[in-house]
Amino acid sequence: MRSYNVAVLGATGAVGQQMLQCLAEQDFPVGNLKLLASSRSAGKIMQFKGEDVVIEEARDEAFDGVDIVLGAAENNIAERFVPVAREKGAVTVDNSSAYRLDPDVPLVIPEVNPEDVAKHNGIIANPNCATIIGLVAVNPLHKLGGIKRMVVSTYQAASGAGVGGLRELESQMARIAAGEPVEDPKAFAYQLACNLIPQIGGFDEVGYTSEEMKMQNEGRKILHAADLRVNCTCVRVPVMRSHSESITLEFEREVSVEAAREALAAAPGVKLVDDPSALAYPMPLDTTDQDDIFVGRVREDISAAPGQHGLTLWCCGDQIRKGAATNAVQIAKMLAE
Amino acid sequence: MRSYNVAVLGATGAVGQQMLQCLAEQDFPVGNLKLLASSRSAGKIMQFKGEDVVIEEARDEAFDGVDIVLGAAENNIAERFVPVAREKGAVTVDNSSAYRLDPDVPLVIPEVNPEDVAKHNGIIANPNCATIIGLVAVNPLHKLGGIKRMVVSTYQAASGAGVGGLRELESQMARIAAGEPVEDPKAFAYQLACNLIPQIGGFDEVGYTSEEMKMQNEGRKILHAADLRVNCTCVRVPVMRSHSESITLEFEREVSVEAAREALAAAPGVKLVDDPSALAYPMPLDTTDQDDIFVGRVREDISAAPGQHGLTLWCCGDQIRKGAATNAVQIAKMLAE
Repeated sequence: MRSYNVAVLGATGAVGQQMLQCLAEQDFPVGNLKLLASSRSAGKIMQFKGEDVVIEEARDEAFDGVDIVLGAAENNIAERFVPVAREKGAVTVDNSSAYRLDPDVPLVIPEVNPEDVAKHNGIIANPNCATIIGLVAVNPLHKLGGIKRMVVSTYQAASGAGVGGLRELESQMARIAAGEPVEDPKAFAYQLACNLIPQIGGFDEVGYTSEEMKMQNEGRKILHAADLRVNCTCVRVPVMRSHSESITLEFEREVSVEAAREALAAAPGVKLVDDPSALAYPMPLDTTDQDDIFVGRVREDISAAPGQHGLTLWCCGDQIRKGAATNAVQIAKMLAE
Repeated sequence: MRSYNVAVLGATGAVGQQMLQCLAEQDFPVGNLKLLASSRSAGKIMQFKGEDVVIEEARDEAFDGVDIVLGAAENNIAERFVPVAREKGAVTVDNSSAYRLDPDVPLVIPEVNPEDVAKHNGIIANPNCATIIGLVAVNPLHKLGGIKRMVVSTYQAASGAGVGGLRELESQMARIAAGEPVEDPKAFAYQLACNLIPQIGGFDEVGYTSEEMKMQNEGRKILHAADLRVNCTCVRVPVMRSHSESITLEFEREVSVEAAREALAAAPGVKLVDDPSALAYPMPLDTTDQDDIFVGRVREDISAAPGQHGLTLWCCGDQIRKGAATNAVQIAKMLAE
């Protein structure tokens, strides 16, 4: 079996570290492995499959001989190095938002639009974490009834702001437990422990945040549904690493609760957790460090007007895994296969 | 000025204690004050306006000579004593859900349907906390455009489960901070710290919880809007005592964002906190121990179909105050006036 030389760009972050673990778990055929980061981290050691790997500074020459780049860096770093990697013949699966809406770049969730991988020209974009989690949950229902409209409220974990976000929430909880004042926040605009922050990303002129618009803009591209309408409210919650979403769907055609549950139970990447009588429903603690998206609370939308076909559901998924690293490594595996 | 003999039924709970504070703050003309609780608490001392008051056991005779009862007890206690109090000539403002949908009992939010107070026959019901907070926020917009439909996702605080819920969340946070395992939960079905629980109340046969149905059932009665359709998803979040709600509204008539903001800014009981450019929006930490409902993130519903008139907003309010005690004492003041 052929092996592939892999570079992880931004290897020291929460997503970069998780990508290494996913490469090992998914038995990706790794040849040479390069861990690329800023000059600050260069020379430090990380582990892959029990072996030491020295971190290199991300520079143009670092991409020589690389087959696949897993991009776990911010937009400005992605924009600096992804074109270089392409120039040198590598294919990048990029987790930044820099290329997601580029018509020349496929935006892929393997459970939803695997066929788009083949259309790449050296770059495949990994969607936004909340978008991946929501679309893995609703795609089996989209196939049944054709989703026209989504009204989504998110409950997004601290890990969406990276390791800094996780450490900040932990520190705030410890200080509250000790009866001490919370330090000025850095990763978030306000205290997150015992609080909710209804803003992720910057605001546009009509009052939506960049995170909120991703669900519609990326959703339309991934589902090949140019007319999909999505109203999203994104809220940061004091949870470590699983995002949750309350989703109300309007369909073209009727989808019964029973048919929805059947489709979800059979869908790849989905675990149906939906037994109210046993108090079984998705919770972020249960999806932590899991690859599957848990879906439950599936029920009729009782507010739908006559003739409207509506369902409501609740889903949770690990933001660092399926929301980022797992999805990227799945795409890389499709490239290798 | 006439004074009124007041009894607080369930005085030792989170809502009962807050009712005492609200009676003092709102300068309610209290004559004799009786604090009623279970036999376990009888004989203990609570303070009202700096004076000691001995807690009495709730028994039929305790309601002799009482003018106004503030009910802060569970349904079974309310059903046991509210009819007795009425028999003895008292008017009860009851925070349990026992009488809320009784056609003979007004269900009142003073900012929304003050006129209904006059229709009482000895009992006035205080609405569900999430319902009060949501309806104070949307009522000014209902007056403008006529709300047909609400899609609501809640983010509900631990205090909704009373003092036990608050202590349980605090204890869990302290144990997590100390690196210790969390004890088996009692107030909630699952661990709440660093988690979300998408169930409040029991489930009905179509999969909605009792808490979720209150928004529609109580909303229809309070707004005198029998055709109002509400789809609600209620979620417990690791926040102490303020509920938050993400609400998407569909109106009969167009309501512009500007008109909505103007109406909210002028509405009693509402504080408009809506300046995205200054990162100003409602957050549960900011509404803690406040009587006002904070409303913000007001924006067009970009998922509304042509001809549908939609807005989306976010609101927060203190669950123990306006969600319960403040609202009840406001009603009592209307009775006194």
